[in-house]
Amino acid sequence: MVNSILEVINLENPIFRGYVLCSSVLVLKTMAMAHLTGIQRFKRQVFVNPEDAAVFKCKPKIDANVERVRRAHLNDLENIPIFFVAGFGYMLTNPPVRTALMLFKIFTIARFLHSLVYAVVKVPQPARGLAWGTGYCITGFMAVKTLLHFL
Amino acid sequence: MVNSILEVINLENPIFRGYVLCSSVLVLKTMAMAHLTGIQRFKRQVFVNPEDAAVFKCKPKIDANVERVRRAHLNDLENIPIFFVAGFGYMLTNPPVRTALMLFKIFTIARFLHSLVYAVVKVPQPARGLAWGTGYCITGFMAVKTLLHFL
Amino acid sequence: MVNSILEVINLENPIFRGYVLCSSVLVLKTMAMAHLTGIQRFKRQVFVNPEDAAVFKCKPKIDANVERVRRAHLNDLENIPIFFVAGFGYMLTNPPVRTALMLFKIFTIARFLHSLVYAVVKVPQPARGLAWGTGYCITGFMAVKTLLHFL
Repeated sequence: MVNSILEVINLENPIFRGYVLCSSVLVLKTMAMAHLTGIQRFKRQVFVNPEDAAVFKCKPKIDANVERVRRAHLNDLENIPIFFVAGFGYMLTNPPVRTALMLFKIFTIARFLHSLVYAVVKVPQPARGLAWGTGYCITGFMAVKTLLHFL
Repeated sequence: MVNSILEVINLENPIFRGYVLCSSVLVLKTMAMAHLTGIQRFKRQVFVNPEDAAVFKCKPKIDANVERVRRAHLNDLENIPIFFVAGFGYMLTNPPVRTALMLFKIFTIARFLHSLVYAVVKVPQPARGLAWGTGYCITGFMAVKTLLHFL
Repeated sequence: MVNSILEVINLENPIFRGYVLCSSVLVLKTMAMAHLTGIQRFKRQVFVNPEDAAVFKCKPKIDANVERVRRAHLNDLENIPIFFVAGFGYMLTNPPVRTALMLFKIFTIARFLHSLVYAVVKVPQPARGLAWGTGYCITGFMAVKTLLHFL
């Protein structure tokens, strides 16, 4: 049982440092998806807004490759913000340092792998399913732990 | 007026405990939407990625029932992360314990009801509008309170 | 170097106050996108759900103006939640007060401008690109700063 919140939210606590570190990496990773979409749009000259298409003198259209990157991005939005919240709550349950750090790191790696096999190199299933499932289970585990602790 | 932040962010403060508890529930609720989408996809054999369709030997397609669950999920992404932030700011305004806990709980219940009437049992309007509006007003109220307090 | 987290997360710290203030404004700004979508839907009688269209005795359909507002909203979801996380981490790196407050404010203004030129008044590029890029660079800067500090 954590007696004071300062035992958790403090800059010497390796769990808190790991949480902030992984969160920053995940922010940059999510941002990279926008970049990746942009690259695909320019490369394939595919724009959804008339004012964007006008710059390149083409018509607005939809492209399967661009949509694929956008789905990978949306999947990040579905999974990463809730990780931030679940991870914060989980820290307050006084978890073992090694376990907590491992969960944060595996989640981060799993999200990179998810985007890699989804939007960069198309790998057949279950590659994407496994990467997604790993992150999903970690967030779920942390949220359930927090729920039971604060109930 | 809250003199020290530790009067708010502390594990004995019922508002903070309620916030962490409701947040965990909302994380799990948002995760359930991904699960619900998956169930619909398998049941109806509807996949948007060729590599997913290939596993079930079918062609990629779009289905109204799957899209409905995905819209409900997207609506969670539009409403739940901003609740986390508005709720955190609101706690710092030193609100009455009963009011704060009531708002957190009603928001959580409203989001469950929203998904229920949107994606599980199709209920005619205004059911979904009311559920959505309840959550929307609560987030708005908390954000305005925080804004006025910190201005 | 911040010695104690309470030097950062405290209600007298202008950076923390600015962060909470800008966050509340950004929550309300994101909420306004839902409102804007609603206005477009009612004005143009465009509804995607059969139960919504039924209320107005019309058929479900897609409309370019509604989709435009929805893309602006989605762009908020792609950029604003990660700002909350990057901004929080950045505060912990003990940044200069003026710089931090300026970044928070410029990000907030840039997001308003983004929605304005995207979904309210259609302004040719590079208006939207610049508004989006400003916010993107600020989030990226803060996330990289946090990453380097906690590495």
